[in-house]
Amino acid sequence: MRPVSIVGIGSTRFGRHKETPLDALAAAACREALADAGIAAPEIGALYLGNFIGGVLSGQEVLAGLVGHQLGLPLSAPCSKVEGACASGGIAFRQAWMSVAAGLCDFAIAAGVEKMSHAGTARVTEALNCAMDQQRDGPTGLSFPGYFGMAARVYGEAHAEWRSHLTAVTRKNKANGLKNPLAQMGEDVSAETVEHSPLVADPLRLYDCCPISDGAAAVVIAADEAVKERLSRAGAKAPIRIAATVQTRGAPDVASIRNLLSFEATVEAARQAYRVSGLSPSDIDFVELHDCFSLTEILDAEDLGVVPRGMAGAWTREGRTRPDGDMPINVSGGLLAKGHPVGATGVGQLYEAVRQLRGEHANPVKDAAIGMTHNLGGAGVVCTVSILKRADA
Amino acid sequence: MRPVSIVGIGSTRFGRHKETPLDALAAAACREALADAGIAAPEIGALYLGNFIGGVLSGQEVLAGLVGHQLGLPLSAPCSKVEGACASGGIAFRQAWMSVAAGLCDFAIAAGVEKMSHAGTARVTEALNCAMDQQRDGPTGLSFPGYFGMAARVYGEAHAEWRSHLTAVTRKNKANGLKNPLAQMGEDVSAETVEHSPLVADPLRLYDCCPISDGAAAVVIAADEAVKERLSRAGAKAPIRIAATVQTRGAPDVASIRNLLSFEATVEAARQAYRVSGLSPSDIDFVELHDCFSLTEILDAEDLGVVPRGMAGAWTREGRTRPDGDMPINVSGGLLAKGHPVGATGVGQLYEAVRQLRGEHANPVKDAAIGMTHNLGGAGVVCTVSILKRADA
Repeated sequence: MRPVSIVGIGSTRFGRHKETPLDALAAAACREALADAGIAAPEIGALYLGNFIGGVLSGQEVLAGLVGHQLGLPLSAPCSKVEGACASGGIAFRQAWMSVAAGLCDFAIAAGVEKMSHAGTARVTEALNCAMDQQRDGPTGLSFPGYFGMAARVYGEAHAEWRSHLTAVTRKNKANGLKNPLAQMGEDVSAETVEHSPLVADPLRLYDCCPISDGAAAVVIAADEAVKERLSRAGAKAPIRIAATVQTRGAPDVASIRNLLSFEATVEAARQAYRVSGLSPSDIDFVELHDCFSLTEILDAEDLGVVPRGMAGAWTREGRTRPDGDMPINVSGGLLAKGHPVGATGVGQLYEAVRQLRGEHANPVKDAAIGMTHNLGGAGVVCTVSILKRADA
Repeated sequence: MRPVSIVGIGSTRFGRHKETPLDALAAAACREALADAGIAAPEIGALYLGNFIGGVLSGQEVLAGLVGHQLGLPLSAPCSKVEGACASGGIAFRQAWMSVAAGLCDFAIAAGVEKMSHAGTARVTEALNCAMDQQRDGPTGLSFPGYFGMAARVYGEAHAEWRSHLTAVTRKNKANGLKNPLAQMGEDVSAETVEHSPLVADPLRLYDCCPISDGAAAVVIAADEAVKERLSRAGAKAPIRIAATVQTRGAPDVASIRNLLSFEATVEAARQAYRVSGLSPSDIDFVELHDCFSLTEILDAEDLGVVPRGMAGAWTREGRTRPDGDMPINVSGGLLAKGHPVGATGVGQLYEAVRQLRGEHANPVKDAAIGMTHNLGGAGVVCTVSILKRADA
């Protein structure tokens, strides 16, 4: 596999885009990424598009082909939708990387898109349940807030101060979101507001849950050897090297999950990502991870090894995961504040990491040279982890 | 990219499987393929699963993760659903090939699955429309039978004997299906029955349309260097070499389609497949192609270059595309008779081609050494073409 970098990024704002169709939303992010890369659509050799519930909520499949047509990609460029629930975007990125790294093409686009806000909360909750095993968990009436609520109860048994841990995650991410122009719901929020917000799935409250979001994100990937010449041009942005991008699987149903406080797919993905990149947790300067609920950030950070096991809640409360802390987590605002347009989320995390590594993020992490992204599907049935590096790191 | 072969195949019968859930159906085909290959689940490095409307009709996504769990694949094996409407299976195959050819793993499974019969004709027709551009064609009331009905009218203007051409396709494929133990609807059917069957989308009649089907198919793919040692064992089946597997895109909506009698995605895919394999149409011994309607077989055969442009109808009527003809097409019975469980179809075609090249097909083509498969999505928005070869060819 040859060295590959991200050379262009694009994203819509995360939030509400009721009037924009799915394909147009995705195409807008792709066009921005192409312009950022200085690469023309006819040069693109493949498009992978992450999308989860476009069929169920918008009656639209073959979305990758529609977007490829709108962009004017060559007929020879394979355009494929990939799906792995909330990790669809991370999968799209890995597939695009694979195409370029294997030498099938020099340039590829990885994009993700979702539209949910038009459907209303009840239909969205039902649609999200498509990520649940319909033979085993579906018939029980379990929902994803319900699942993570159960996990929060188990967490509470291990940590007497659980509530303050969760509140600290939400307050940090909402504050980070305030500085991110793409974020749906940044807010300077008090502990009291968080802890008195309506119960969604006891003990999780409204402020423990990510919002319902529309949005799209895209990155352009290039073989390093194919962009050498372009980089000598004035104004070219530094490519961000893909040091690792891996995908793993985990148990899909509650009865098969051994420990509600750790996702085996994340543990395995982190292990692989460190092995492939030759890096260790101490090399990581910041992480964008999958905080679909406040609790999930705590579990993810521990599974990824960037915070010691059992310590993520305390670290968060102590401010050690803030942008100026030991291990900045979700500087973008994360899913909790930036929003969670499901199929777009994994690519959106990469967008944020590239902005950060280029030194152009609105919420900068000092001397950031190596960043990690983590995208989780369902209750851990699929996970992708990527590590990005500045070329000089 | 290193040389890769198909070393195991599995398939359920195509037809009705109302009581079997989607994941179990797919897992059954995968288990059969693994047993056929003599490869254990823990050796598998990746699973790609083609599925189109499992979300809409069964409320089930993250299907690849569920199947990977049921099979007991390693946690390190990426399990991804891919979607490109009726070409989802062909896309899954190409992705699995890519993983192995690029050296990311030595063994991978490509599978496809669909369940439709439980939903009834009206819901299925609506679900299939997810493959249509919902901004442009969706609101017009167009359906896929409607689209191909329009194309059949154009075909009729060019060919006075159009009806006998379409009838000949249906009669051949139905007769082929009679000999295929996996086929849903083989039949020794008279021209009169075909031509007096109910109109579905004028001028297309019921016998011009493929049925609504459930089913799953799977193939195990291996790097040639990884199976050398196994092949020396007694009873090992000859691997079937993947000479080419390509994917292209085409116009997604009627207004963008220049010619209703040719799919640009197929023309481009065939061109690429011949180039990659170094073969030409005259080298192809048989073709399994995407006959979702009787007319489509005629258009596909001409687009693939295996029959001269404008001649496929006449060739079919003259018996030249029968198993004993110059260019055997859809010896399996094709979508018309074998059935069309949408996401499974592309992998089912590869299953049939491998059986044929191994010399174990119930409907043999004499001295078949090189076979082609062709899988089309929507009205040509995506296409995959693969060429398989016997190792001694």
